[in-house]
Amino acid sequence: MSIKIGIAGYGNLGRGVECAIRQNEDLELAAVFTRRDPETVKILTEGVPVCRAEEAADWKDKIDVLIICGGSATDLPVQTPKFAELFNVIDSFDTHAKIPEHFAAVDAAAKAAGHVGIISVGWDPGLFSLNRMYANAILPNGKDYTFWGKGVSQGHSDAIRRIPGVKNGKQYTIPVPEALDAARSGQNPELTTRQKHTRECFVVAEEGADKAAIEEAIKTMPNYFDEYDTTVHFISEEELLAEHSAMPHGGFVLRSGKTGWDLENNHIIEYSLKLDSNPEFTTSVLVAYARAAYRMAQEGQTGCKTVFDVAPAYLSAKSGEELRKSLL
Amino acid sequence: MSIKIGIAGYGNLGRGVECAIRQNEDLELAAVFTRRDPETVKILTEGVPVCRAEEAADWKDKIDVLIICGGSATDLPVQTPKFAELFNVIDSFDTHAKIPEHFAAVDAAAKAAGHVGIISVGWDPGLFSLNRMYANAILPNGKDYTFWGKGVSQGHSDAIRRIPGVKNGKQYTIPVPEALDAARSGQNPELTTRQKHTRECFVVAEEGADKAAIEEAIKTMPNYFDEYDTTVHFISEEELLAEHSAMPHGGFVLRSGKTGWDLENNHIIEYSLKLDSNPEFTTSVLVAYARAAYRMAQEGQTGCKTVFDVAPAYLSAKSGEELRKSLL
Repeated sequence: MSIKIGIAGYGNLGRGVECAIRQNEDLELAAVFTRRDPETVKILTEGVPVCRAEEAADWKDKIDVLIICGGSATDLPVQTPKFAELFNVIDSFDTHAKIPEHFAAVDAAAKAAGHVGIISVGWDPGLFSLNRMYANAILPNGKDYTFWGKGVSQGHSDAIRRIPGVKNGKQYTIPVPEALDAARSGQNPELTTRQKHTRECFVVAEEGADKAAIEEAIKTMPNYFDEYDTTVHFISEEELLAEHSAMPHGGFVLRSGKTGWDLENNHIIEYSLKLDSNPEFTTSVLVAYARAAYRMAQEGQTGCKTVFDVAPAYLSAKSGEELRKSLL
Repeated sequence: MSIKIGIAGYGNLGRGVECAIRQNEDLELAAVFTRRDPETVKILTEGVPVCRAEEAADWKDKIDVLIICGGSATDLPVQTPKFAELFNVIDSFDTHAKIPEHFAAVDAAAKAAGHVGIISVGWDPGLFSLNRMYANAILPNGKDYTFWGKGVSQGHSDAIRRIPGVKNGKQYTIPVPEALDAARSGQNPELTTRQKHTRECFVVAEEGADKAAIEEAIKTMPNYFDEYDTTVHFISEEELLAEHSAMPHGGFVLRSGKTGWDLENNHIIEYSLKLDSNPEFTTSVLVAYARAAYRMAQEGQTGCKTVFDVAPAYLSAKSGEELRKSLL
């Protein structure tokens, strides 16, 4: 009997979850919930209903885990605690500073209802967090480095598109190779924001717009660009769609740490991702944690969890015996 | 109150555990057990007793976790189940093919005594296994690659030293850069043993020994060298001691996998280690898992576990709240 998964929200993440379920024989897509008119939402899987979000309660006993594919700014803080009353839930909440608050809200709701909720699942937060945590536990005396990219940052692309005179735009975050090499050197250097990443923007200007003013507005934008070396390219809408429609991303997590009686030896732990599709990879992680949520709930666990609380074996469709034989 | 750790066996691993404990404020070295005459064993930590292995039972209530630092061939299969009767235990059992058997023996002993035993802890098996497992769960449709080195292989160095006419020797396992690049390409190539690694040997010949015969014996040695491109350098004992006494190691675990409705996107997950000291890094992992064993035992868990069964948070000295705030 397969594990029945529901999807709440059918954008890039929802579609990614749908594709990932298809690759896992023990999982089955039960229903998709949307805030749009279900008639207008066409999904890829045949025979699976698209329902109004308000109908979710009717599915209470027909879904094992609901994967919530909303945005972190306004959707998830409301949706995850609410849906945790009905289902075991997974989300990819990624506003790092607000994780403690979100954890508390989901924990209260999930405990009251006897469900498991796993929040902040994906690659950062998610797999990158796991690697930071393992590496810190193993090498307490050391320094962490996280680099993102090369990849498209949705937040920075959105910020560009809000500038007057900008019709469309994409922003790539790029790690500086020399900074990566320095992090790998064992010298544990302090690296500034500017030293670690550069930003490259591809912008479609509206006809007659002041390109110099747009470039200046981008490069001086507080928080988003002012602390970085930023390059701006003006291109046509055709070129943007042809060359910059994909959503690649990735990055590097390093820890450089010392061991030995007098800390005489250095070690580098490095984890990296090179992703053709950020949403498809993120949702592949979500789906593996949905399996974990189901199993933890089956065992009687309740409340909010993060990737730190989930024993790795719960993520795999294989039994403990198979895992020890084939992957240990 | 700190967690009291015992060490069984005081060689490179035992000394590594001792150094790692020093870096963790919540851990304390309680005693070292040895099969040698304790009078002849000088440890680094002041005020900690060195005891005969036979006295271990006297320490039953004075040690929270015993880290067993024996060899996998003959020590651990006997020691780990035996000590699991007295203590929560950790070992680094690394004979991959015999893990199921070892697991069963430790599981039976630990369950009967109400203890936790975590076996096959280190980096391979250990952290590399974890990364293979996480990556397989996330990308079910893909291919795994593991590369070892550049580093000293004890097993291969021992094999060289058993050849008649060889006085001393060290062997380095080296990943082939082109094979690493191929694994990272997203093309999921099949790579042969010979394509993945080369072996480099530094040999001290006895006076008058037939060097050509030694070189031939190394290069044609079944299992160890015959499937590899091997280079042999004859050097003086002085040079060997000066240049090849360190125990660096490391390696790479990659998974290249597809996502998307028609598997149209590729992703590379890569984990790598670059270690100045193989035994000190291995024991840093052992010590973090000792903390986990203590906590799992405190919660009433019993039996044999592997890295797959241990929730990451158990490894860290930080609380769940601190972890979510600082590392998620």
